[in-house]
Amino acid sequence: MSVGKSEKRVDAFDKVTGRAKYTEDLIDPSAYVAKIVHSTIPHGRVVSIDTSEAEKIEGLVKIVTCFDVPKHGFPTAGHPWSTDPSHQDIADRRLLNEHVRYYGDDVAVVIAKDEVSASQALNLVKVEYEEYPAVFDVFEAMKDGAPQLHEDFPNNIIKHTTNNRGNYQEAIKEEGLIKVEGWYDTPVVQHSHIENGIVYSYEESGKIVVVASTQIPHIVRRITGQALGIPWGKVRIIKPYIGGGFGNKQDALYEPLGAFLTTQVGGHPVKLDTSREETFVSNRTRHKITIHIVSYLRKDGTFAARKMESFANNGAYASHGHSIAAKGLGCFHQLYPCDNVEGDAYTVYTNRPVAGAMRGYGIPQSMFAVESHTEDIAKALGMDALEFRMKNLMPQGYVDGFSKNENYYDSFRECLEVGKKAIDYDKKMEEYKNQTGNIRRGIGHAVFWYNTAVYPISLETSACRMVLHQDGSVQLMLGETEIGQGADTAFSQMAADAIGVKFEDIHIATNQDTDVTPFGTAAYASRQTFIASFSITKTARILREKIFDHAYKLLGVTRENIDLIDGNLVRISDNRILMSLGELATTELYSFENSEHITAESTYQIRNNAYSFGCSFAEVEVDLGLCKATVKRLINVHDCGKLINPQLAEAQAHGGMSMAIGYALTEELKYDEKTGRTLNNNLLDYKLSTTMDHPDLEVHFVENPEPTSPYGTKSLGEPPTCSPAPAIRNAIYNATGVAVNQCPMNPHVLYPLFNEAGLLDNLEIEF
Amino acid sequence: MSVGKSEKRVDAFDKVTGRAKYTEDLIDPSAYVAKIVHSTIPHGRVVSIDTSEAEKIEGLVKIVTCFDVPKHGFPTAGHPWSTDPSHQDIADRRLLNEHVRYYGDDVAVVIAKDEVSASQALNLVKVEYEEYPAVFDVFEAMKDGAPQLHEDFPNNIIKHTTNNRGNYQEAIKEEGLIKVEGWYDTPVVQHSHIENGIVYSYEESGKIVVVASTQIPHIVRRITGQALGIPWGKVRIIKPYIGGGFGNKQDALYEPLGAFLTTQVGGHPVKLDTSREETFVSNRTRHKITIHIVSYLRKDGTFAARKMESFANNGAYASHGHSIAAKGLGCFHQLYPCDNVEGDAYTVYTNRPVAGAMRGYGIPQSMFAVESHTEDIAKALGMDALEFRMKNLMPQGYVDGFSKNENYYDSFRECLEVGKKAIDYDKKMEEYKNQTGNIRRGIGHAVFWYNTAVYPISLETSACRMVLHQDGSVQLMLGETEIGQGADTAFSQMAADAIGVKFEDIHIATNQDTDVTPFGTAAYASRQTFIASFSITKTARILREKIFDHAYKLLGVTRENIDLIDGNLVRISDNRILMSLGELATTELYSFENSEHITAESTYQIRNNAYSFGCSFAEVEVDLGLCKATVKRLINVHDCGKLINPQLAEAQAHGGMSMAIGYALTEELKYDEKTGRTLNNNLLDYKLSTTMDHPDLEVHFVENPEPTSPYGTKSLGEPPTCSPAPAIRNAIYNATGVAVNQCPMNPHVLYPLFNEAGLLDNLEIEF
Repeated sequence: MSVGKSEKRVDAFDKVTGRAKYTEDLIDPSAYVAKIVHSTIPHGRVVSIDTSEAEKIEGLVKIVTCFDVPKHGFPTAGHPWSTDPSHQDIADRRLLNEHVRYYGDDVAVVIAKDEVSASQALNLVKVEYEEYPAVFDVFEAMKDGAPQLHEDFPNNIIKHTTNNRGNYQEAIKEEGLIKVEGWYDTPVVQHSHIENGIVYSYEESGKIVVVASTQIPHIVRRITGQALGIPWGKVRIIKPYIGGGFGNKQDALYEPLGAFLTTQVGGHPVKLDTSREETFVSNRTRHKITIHIVSYLRKDGTFAARKMESFANNGAYASHGHSIAAKGLGCFHQLYPCDNVEGDAYTVYTNRPVAGAMRGYGIPQSMFAVESHTEDIAKALGMDALEFRMKNLMPQGYVDGFSKNENYYDSFRECLEVGKKAIDYDKKMEEYKNQTGNIRRGIGHAVFWYNTAVYPISLETSACRMVLHQDGSVQLMLGETEIGQGADTAFSQMAADAIGVKFEDIHIATNQDTDVTPFGTAAYASRQTFIASFSITKTARILREKIFDHAYKLLGVTRENIDLIDGNLVRISDNRILMSLGELATTELYSFENSEHITAESTYQIRNNAYSFGCSFAEVEVDLGLCKATVKRLINVHDCGKLINPQLAEAQAHGGMSMAIGYALTEELKYDEKTGRTLNNNLLDYKLSTTMDHPDLEVHFVENPEPTSPYGTKSLGEPPTCSPAPAIRNAIYNATGVAVNQCPMNPHVLYPLFNEAGLLDNLEIEF
Repeated sequence: MSVGKSEKRVDAFDKVTGRAKYTEDLIDPSAYVAKIVHSTIPHGRVVSIDTSEAEKIEGLVKIVTCFDVPKHGFPTAGHPWSTDPSHQDIADRRLLNEHVRYYGDDVAVVIAKDEVSASQALNLVKVEYEEYPAVFDVFEAMKDGAPQLHEDFPNNIIKHTTNNRGNYQEAIKEEGLIKVEGWYDTPVVQHSHIENGIVYSYEESGKIVVVASTQIPHIVRRITGQALGIPWGKVRIIKPYIGGGFGNKQDALYEPLGAFLTTQVGGHPVKLDTSREETFVSNRTRHKITIHIVSYLRKDGTFAARKMESFANNGAYASHGHSIAAKGLGCFHQLYPCDNVEGDAYTVYTNRPVAGAMRGYGIPQSMFAVESHTEDIAKALGMDALEFRMKNLMPQGYVDGFSKNENYYDSFRECLEVGKKAIDYDKKMEEYKNQTGNIRRGIGHAVFWYNTAVYPISLETSACRMVLHQDGSVQLMLGETEIGQGADTAFSQMAADAIGVKFEDIHIATNQDTDVTPFGTAAYASRQTFIASFSITKTARILREKIFDHAYKLLGVTRENIDLIDGNLVRISDNRILMSLGELATTELYSFENSEHITAESTYQIRNNAYSFGCSFAEVEVDLGLCKATVKRLINVHDCGKLINPQLAEAQAHGGMSMAIGYALTEELKYDEKTGRTLNNNLLDYKLSTTMDHPDLEVHFVENPEPTSPYGTKSLGEPPTCSPAPAIRNAIYNATGVAVNQCPMNPHVLYPLFNEAGLLDNLEIEF
């Protein structure tokens, strides 16, 4: 069996040798170059665009402006389509916008024969604006009289949802309750995937073909059709290898615009490659979510009532809309179950760059708030935080009424026990008590709640096709996508076992081409391995039955007495190998009696979901003088079910932990408060965490097999990002006694807090 | 309905605008350039290869020689594989040959970083040969003691088959018989497709990928696997648009070599583009077949006995082996049925360029002999040739014992009647009697026999996949290939009608990619439209049933009361449109109850075949002084069943007629009799027929629907090439009284014959 083995990545050799083809590698040298004119004001209306000077550039082909595009809005979120209008994403955006809503909005495009001409022309396009007042802060935006970004959204509120259980107001009247309250704030960060967004478009065979760095080719096809107002079958999206996405590419970024541009130049190929600066400003970001939590506790350490309010700054366009804040709110009542809960979440338009999906999808924000708050509670109760969590966390057997997810194991406590042991909790807690001096150490921990995939909120559907080659190897096609995470390898392992062939005899078609690739909604919600396990096993079952039918014709062996093992047809009764699968495939394809190109294809609609829990333990060293925290150890413990490929699982956790360290300590997209202009839209000024900032990252797994999925797998893609930040925050708290309630916990943030706490008074620093 | 309409070619716009991508368009600029070192002797053994000077060229990457390739032979014929060794093609060739067998054989390859370096290095490779005696003539080659080209083939005979009925030797003893005997000879010609053979190869995803200008991607994959000795699933062939093939690309030309070369440079992309000169010499040619026919006739114009012997010069390697001569022989007893027939066909190795498949596959040679001979018989009997044919041709209801083909209509006589009327036969025959002077006119005609596809000699199998898009359009995938003939358009028309959508709502995947494209043996034997009609209708039936199942779930309408017409689900009882197919597809794909990406795939094994008959009528003008014949009118009449697309059918006939005019009058690949070197390996010296040599080509169709195929279609691809040459020959005969028994009937051939006939004596020529 291949599942459970650390098989070598199927794309390892091609990626190491540079052979793997990305969008850039597929662009014809004759392609025109398109560059976008971005708004230089945060809010206003384009009055006119003067292209006369730009048109004098020799290599200019065409300038397309906001006045040339279709006058209808389209949604961009990478969600499965819903035929129910009330579940459709908000169509608040045009291909280019006359009404600009942030500094960096898309106003016009220059198309030229080469990069230089495009850049020259870009600088010569003059846009005249009528400026409107702008609002950048979520609370300001919600005020009456605030600048209004979109019609039909009073007070700029995209959506406000509540999630109440029991009776909070009555419950807090109980006598003797201890109230713990906090406000927690998270920063705007950006995905910073290696490959910027890039779109290559042309017309061919009566279609618009878009080669793009996207996580979601089939969804992007639909959105492109909507944006251009053309039948979806007239759009063909090809996804080659992509250099990461982390949710940014779970959105139609520039694919619809690229598709439109080729139609404006007679179908000529157009390359729309974006810069890192554009990626930071004009793509998507992680929501800044400000969260207020109030907990009422009994002296025995149990919850009487809880309340959470969250305010998500969504920027100028809806993108994923309220889904992210809603998911962040949804975990609140589940993580530490309590009879009386009030929850409110608001998602609000502001004149800032657009927030959308990013690894964790609202949970890193919620976890920072909830798990910081949990630490605050323990401190308030005078309890050990680990003990408090053990006492109050979701118990085994818990079932969520909405998702029907069941906590089949005592995942939280098992994970915490592993982490506790790994970090040597009791010893370290004791050792780091009562420190003095400039350099202080502390350990902290935090848990996270995550659920796999999107059922039952959205449709979960995945189709798969398998083609049996004459040598007994099998071509595997899925709508689910490799985006760098190793999905193709996991898919191949599951397919090998499901069919009964060797891992090396699975050939996966890594590129999705919406013309011919089975439908899948693709890479988001940590769904790839979980979801594909269903469609792969279903399709393999069909393929096997076809193979066994042929085996009966060829070998006369009854279905009950035959198996396919490691690429051989084996008679069960005596374990005799009757024939290789390759021989069967060849014989039957070329048969004068039963010629068949043996293939199988099916769609599986997934009607369940799975919790995927874990925790982080961090050890930090705080340099009080520098107001700087450094992570010395970071341990993640995950119950993501059975591991399909342990080495890849570990690598995936490492990536998420790295991202979380940056989120905790250094990363923040900053903007000018007057103009809304992003100030650090580059990798020099934006402090992305790198390996230099990391300790050796430690990952442990508690492999409780998920009972509902074929290989007992559940999500791992996003979870590693969720709990490190609060664990680091809690370690700083334990090291210094200072509760930091916002990320990034950089010196700018720590200095006033340390100062206020008196930690900087009389500090003796040794040089 | 779309079938029967002259729909615009699906690739028209892309081809006219230059947007259609051919192999050359897909080559990465970084690809290495490979060039082949060809043998400069006709027969011998490579003793050594000195690469030392070539290796000094700066851009040289590697030289691969005949000593470096696998030591096993492989077959190249584009035939379906057979698991029965006795039906497998002859594996007499290596990737590069130590034992060279013709001037132009492949000895080594230089791989360089660019064209110039490759050309420079090519010229510096020194090959030392041990020379063997060579033989170029088929009769010389069959003699005892002749140079032996391949082991296991005594007297160089690849195969000798007989085809006897009744008792020829007894039958010729009948008293009063008239004996007519003739030897007929045909030339070596070359396909001269626009796009030379080109192979682009690289390694990716653990496979060797070969993008190639081939008619037969799935077959080439198999052959490449065999040639390299690797599992076939490790080979991926991609066929983009191709610029014609005419049978030359129904052979693995350089795909296996290209595949091997990339493995020699670490999987780096390699471009192996061949020149026109290489196309003429080192690809395939049409067999020169020398045919001897003896007929014994009764005075009433009926046959008593017939004999045909044919000798096919196959050149240095087997390629399609005996199949072509065998097909040429197979028609003999069928065309003019006779109780007593003897047939012998020999296919013989010689040290000449390799003969293989070419449009008509032996029938143009046979028809030139048989229909020239038929004219000779009529002359000998003093009968009108048309009357003789009408009397003796295969009757309606004739069934061939082997193929089980039935002549369901009186096709020959119906076609002849149409042609007779079109050319105004009686008037012209009368008008051109007893001409004198330098310029003479004559009309002539000839029929042809053809059978569609290759059943029951070889496997006929075709798979098809259909994918329903959300807008109700359907993606169509077939292993059958567009090679310039318009197949994609015919496939789309048939699919539209079979499914019940509009023609423009069929999107065909024109490129075959053996990883994902359903299996088909592809373009040869005039099988594409006929064969695909089965796999398309079978798959459409499956797709429709799936659609109707969903319609039942959505609409509650019973299967018997629903139809799919022009993309709408229609209630039969009142013709009400209940829903569009696009709405159904969208609703069901995104359904929370029945989510399905509706697709269908199936293989159809064809177990029948179809005759496809017709005739040509030609009017020629002969300039006796110049010994030159010019075609003034050429009329082809075809019964190829119901026309799928009349305009495309006419165009296809035009192309074949053009090819036949060159075959009749000008084309011949000539060679040096000492060295075997081809003398006119270029389009200047090789006299390809062009539009300047053509009259307006006239095509008529007798549309007798083939009862066995879904749309009543049968072959048209090759038939148009089969009968023009003998029709022109017979017209020259009628104009001059001279029977010309060889092609091309150019001045070199006509001069001695006219001279011998006294036509040039006392010739008065006006200037």
